[in-house]
Amino acid sequence: MPHDDVVVVGAGAIGLGIAWRSATRGASVTVVDPAPGSGASSVAPGMLAPVTEFHHGEYELFELNLVSSKMFPAWIAELESVSGMSTGYRRCGTVMAARDADDMISLRETFAFQQRLGMRSEMARSAEVRGIEPALGPNTRGGIHVPGDHQVEPVALLAALLSACEDRGVRFVRSGVSGILVERGKVAGLSTAEGERITCDRVVLAAGARSGMIGGLPPGFVKVRPVKGQVVELLPGDESVCPTHNVRGLDVYLVPRQDGRLVVGATVEEKGWDPHPTAGAVHDLLRYAYELFPGVTEMRFGEVRVGFRPGTPDNAPLLGPTDIEGLILATGHYRNGILLTPVTADRIATLLETGSSPEDITAFSPTRKTMKRS
Amino acid sequence: MPHDDVVVVGAGAIGLGIAWRSATRGASVTVVDPAPGSGASSVAPGMLAPVTEFHHGEYELFELNLVSSKMFPAWIAELESVSGMSTGYRRCGTVMAARDADDMISLRETFAFQQRLGMRSEMARSAEVRGIEPALGPNTRGGIHVPGDHQVEPVALLAALLSACEDRGVRFVRSGVSGILVERGKVAGLSTAEGERITCDRVVLAAGARSGMIGGLPPGFVKVRPVKGQVVELLPGDESVCPTHNVRGLDVYLVPRQDGRLVVGATVEEKGWDPHPTAGAVHDLLRYAYELFPGVTEMRFGEVRVGFRPGTPDNAPLLGPTDIEGLILATGHYRNGILLTPVTADRIATLLETGSSPEDITAFSPTRKTMKRS
Repeated sequence: MPHDDVVVVGAGAIGLGIAWRSATRGASVTVVDPAPGSGASSVAPGMLAPVTEFHHGEYELFELNLVSSKMFPAWIAELESVSGMSTGYRRCGTVMAARDADDMISLRETFAFQQRLGMRSEMARSAEVRGIEPALGPNTRGGIHVPGDHQVEPVALLAALLSACEDRGVRFVRSGVSGILVERGKVAGLSTAEGERITCDRVVLAAGARSGMIGGLPPGFVKVRPVKGQVVELLPGDESVCPTHNVRGLDVYLVPRQDGRLVVGATVEEKGWDPHPTAGAVHDLLRYAYELFPGVTEMRFGEVRVGFRPGTPDNAPLLGPTDIEGLILATGHYRNGILLTPVTADRIATLLETGSSPEDITAFSPTRKTMKRS
Repeated sequence: MPHDDVVVVGAGAIGLGIAWRSATRGASVTVVDPAPGSGASSVAPGMLAPVTEFHHGEYELFELNLVSSKMFPAWIAELESVSGMSTGYRRCGTVMAARDADDMISLRETFAFQQRLGMRSEMARSAEVRGIEPALGPNTRGGIHVPGDHQVEPVALLAALLSACEDRGVRFVRSGVSGILVERGKVAGLSTAEGERITCDRVVLAAGARSGMIGGLPPGFVKVRPVKGQVVELLPGDESVCPTHNVRGLDVYLVPRQDGRLVVGATVEEKGWDPHPTAGAVHDLLRYAYELFPGVTEMRFGEVRVGFRPGTPDNAPLLGPTDIEGLILATGHYRNGILLTPVTADRIATLLETGSSPEDITAFSPTRKTMKRS
């Protein structure tokens, strides 16, 4: 096998984004994945709403979400131009909706946080929010409108990224990775599940929830675990019952596609690699959707999909170099993988080019305090 | 085309049951159906519980249900022996469960009705019914246990019936029927969707919900409409959460298969031929199932299926001769098609043999008062 500048492990949105960006800047890139474009990325609803929740202690993460969100329009324009493919990207805005007084208290916290971050968003009373999103149920207590939010269709995004990578000469090895080869504290290459050896001195590990399972590294070196998520897709029916914005409730979110489909997500389950959709998840997602949009009961039932988010101990991604020379992590994006693809791709490509992490990802170093072994 | 003794239109459970029984008694039988063994029969859960509801004015129907239910074991034994195939038949009993005091009132009426019909059934208090069916939720108020009830797997039943028909020399024409040919008030044959003509002087119309759409008959002659039903199938998981009997709640029934699958049925919808599963039906079925068996939320979600029952104005089937000589109806079985297959097959075969309707189906004559044109 040839010696490559960079080998990226994982062909989800993050891995493909990095491969495309690095190759665009002149690197020779190989991507290793048994099934490029599948995995959690293909299950993600693709809601690009950087701040719809308020979490203490996640200020840097929301800042990074915002940076990536702002990069999205130009990044998509370039990708669609290079690939000649649509990604389903559109600026639909987000409506956060409150069912009751408790929900309103939570929304006010989120609104204050959005204001601190300098986002454009508006609090709306019941009648106002139903003017913006008429399919909301009559009990809706109020909401927040974020007009700048957007969405992308991850399955279309992945197809465009694959095409753009091929266009830039990225080489694909359709194989699992059995281990990263480390010699004297430095990356020496990797071995595939088929027993091939790929020689290289730089590996970007972007294998999502599987990142923690790659052999050759010390146990617990990559602190990523699978966090199961189930989403239900409803199929086009009566348009008047379906939202037109991304909608965020306290227990559910809804992402309407241009063709009338509606993605309802998502459970957050600590169930290891259990791949099965469950009756309870389908019930709960449909119930929460119905509480906000009573008319969705009339929509056609499509399917249930299961994905595994790469979760980390502090819910923030692992971005940058490690103690092993030549091993770079770009994983652990948890619930923000699609949203964080442009900024991750750009910053990791810069790191590969310059040898140092851009400042806005240093807080996400894989060697940060919260990642230290306990 | 050859002249046949009998042509049966429709290869669901009823049509195949009649064809097999008639052929066994020596008739030359042709069955016409574009897709034998599909249709509503293949969606039915196959719960063989003749009396789990009390309906004023349906005394004759429940009597017929009971007769057919009693025929089932011997009929299945013969069918499995001839076909060499399993039908999934088993005597699992039924538990009717009450969530609350209102449900209990309804169950007491059903119990009294069962006693009038001479059925073996027992009222059970909360602790007793949970002793019989331990997966029932702790709120269960009480119930009825019907130990003699049984179930069959309709998909397996249809395969066995097809095999048994072929064994008896039944001829299959895989085609739709565009019309029944009537000359001077008598059946002369029928024409297929492909334009073939089949000559015969006796037609048994057993086309289920499509029976009212067959050409060549006066409009409204066969008073059958499609009544949409949706069922959800859950897949095997933790056995302890799944019932072991047929279970009838007031809003839902659950039929557990031997391999751990659980069929949850069914909606009753007047939506014409709308073939789409809906979010609302999936939600409601899962919710009702959860109210009785909280543990089903842990079961794997399988799929939603849609079928169309043949509904009639008085909810009873249409069995016997019509004003058109040679045209016999065996349709309109509504929610009781699988259960009523043995008695329908036997009685219609007798009618074909002797020329007169057995006494216990005369109440279901297609020319009865409630079927007269309004």
